[in-house]
Amino acid sequence: MELVTIGDIEQAAARIRAFVLRTPLIPAPWAGDDDRPLWVKPENLQSVGAFKVRGAFNAIGRLDESVRTRGVVAYSSGNHAQAVAYAAAIYGVPAHIVMPEETPAVKVEATRAHGARVVLCGAGQRERVAAEVLEETGGVLIPPFDHPDIIAGQGTIGLEIAEDLPSVETVLVPVSGGGLSSGIGTAIKALCPSARVIGVEPELAGDTAQAFRTGQRVDWPIEDRNRTIADGLRSQPSELTFAHLQRVLDDVVTVTEDQIRSAVAEFAYRAHLVSEPSGAVALAAYRSVDLPPGRTVVVLSGGNVQPSLLQEILAG
Amino acid sequence: MELVTIGDIEQAAARIRAFVLRTPLIPAPWAGDDDRPLWVKPENLQSVGAFKVRGAFNAIGRLDESVRTRGVVAYSSGNHAQAVAYAAAIYGVPAHIVMPEETPAVKVEATRAHGARVVLCGAGQRERVAAEVLEETGGVLIPPFDHPDIIAGQGTIGLEIAEDLPSVETVLVPVSGGGLSSGIGTAIKALCPSARVIGVEPELAGDTAQAFRTGQRVDWPIEDRNRTIADGLRSQPSELTFAHLQRVLDDVVTVTEDQIRSAVAEFAYRAHLVSEPSGAVALAAYRSVDLPPGRTVVVLSGGNVQPSLLQEILAG
Repeated sequence: MELVTIGDIEQAAARIRAFVLRTPLIPAPWAGDDDRPLWVKPENLQSVGAFKVRGAFNAIGRLDESVRTRGVVAYSSGNHAQAVAYAAAIYGVPAHIVMPEETPAVKVEATRAHGARVVLCGAGQRERVAAEVLEETGGVLIPPFDHPDIIAGQGTIGLEIAEDLPSVETVLVPVSGGGLSSGIGTAIKALCPSARVIGVEPELAGDTAQAFRTGQRVDWPIEDRNRTIADGLRSQPSELTFAHLQRVLDDVVTVTEDQIRSAVAEFAYRAHLVSEPSGAVALAAYRSVDLPPGRTVVVLSGGNVQPSLLQEILAG
Repeated sequence: MELVTIGDIEQAAARIRAFVLRTPLIPAPWAGDDDRPLWVKPENLQSVGAFKVRGAFNAIGRLDESVRTRGVVAYSSGNHAQAVAYAAAIYGVPAHIVMPEETPAVKVEATRAHGARVVLCGAGQRERVAAEVLEETGGVLIPPFDHPDIIAGQGTIGLEIAEDLPSVETVLVPVSGGGLSSGIGTAIKALCPSARVIGVEPELAGDTAQAFRTGQRVDWPIEDRNRTIADGLRSQPSELTFAHLQRVLDDVVTVTEDQIRSAVAEFAYRAHLVSEPSGAVALAAYRSVDLPPGRTVVVLSGGNVQPSLLQEILAG
């Protein structure tokens, strides 16, 4: 299997530069741990509130003009939907987004606001409906993580971390389908080979932590993975992303729901950043897992949290 | 009276570069106003949660070695206290911070955590007590706004805005003592001479809006200014800062308490940034004041809000 290279990631960086925010690496002296000085990579500041724009701009940007005119198709109820709709609008490409009927109205409206056509579907039907839309339009599917262009796009975060803090010693990254962690890990291992890259999952969706230990992908029932508050971390790696994770991650650790909630509150009160629960797992691991000392970066992957949930978490 | 120049601000930028976060200029497509595309300058991401570090690093950085050993003195219950304590610690300079007895314990502790000596004083006594500390230590007073080095330090924000968006047409800046707005206005007028710079105040502490119209400084009773929730915007310009404001601002507008609260919530939910009420007045003006069209930047000056107040505002 061919893995994404640092060259692919550098090309992605050039391709998406004009469209994506070059997020700063924010020093976090408030962390107060002299043995593990902390920096935050705030991907919640991207235009759709999450890192997903990087992969979307890279994947759509690589399409031929002839393909682009037929449009792009994605299925997602979350940040990937917004990211594809947003990137397609900027490129002037039609976007068809398949979303489950139970998607909160605010997310459907946000996707339509970017000019995308939203196709609602029944539970468990989204892959079938997406196939129909592809057939009907002749467009191209932009998958959420299982594609080299998506991995390379997300990997630009690792490139920026290495540029801003070449002496980084530990990078903590959320793991779900594995696109983000595959990309960041590939970039960090190429540019800062002595740095550790550690994936972080909710304990309640800890399939990859288990798979990483055994060396074999595992399949947890979706009802189990749905238990976590971190609704962006309920996917599982594909064959492609798992092959990357085995190569570029040093470990995969898990955090509890309470640790995730505390990390969301700490981001708000100390870093002045709003994180969704999925975006806060790396900080949760920094606070709760026994990690080696050294300069540490946590990737805050996104900030799209329901107002009522944010209020509940901040009230403790 | 000698005013701060763009050269002073450029020197300040070089002096503080290693110590201060180069904040990004964040595009805000969520603003949804095609006639007034919006960008946010997020100074809440600085290490002490506010722009005040820029002036503090510049002012202390300019002191002679012989003066530095005697230490620096500041009086403040807010962000300036933290900023001076933090900058002094980084430079290895003793810091003595005079704070009113009613300062929330959390702010006193945060100041001490930077290694500063905190001297508590009775209400209305802080200038007298600071004078005593200066006498006793032989140190140097670092004022919150009434000094060219402070103005030049805050002006580096304007320099960065001009670098990142040379075609900016309107910059909205909070106004209190006027150090921030004097500095940003000076930089913008030098580098983007056709851009408008507009100061924003709470209506309940609208002394500068009144003074700007009449061309004369006015003195509002502190009991009146204390009515606003924006506790960082209760100061009044000095002779020095008012002279700058008359030169570099195009207008000073005011916003209501409700508009400030709405802007704090909008920053959290749409931009994923936690703002203190004082930090949100520029966005409040963007939403509520009749402004000319064009590319608009709002300066989010700080994020240090009491958790209970943030919860109350987010709950609407």
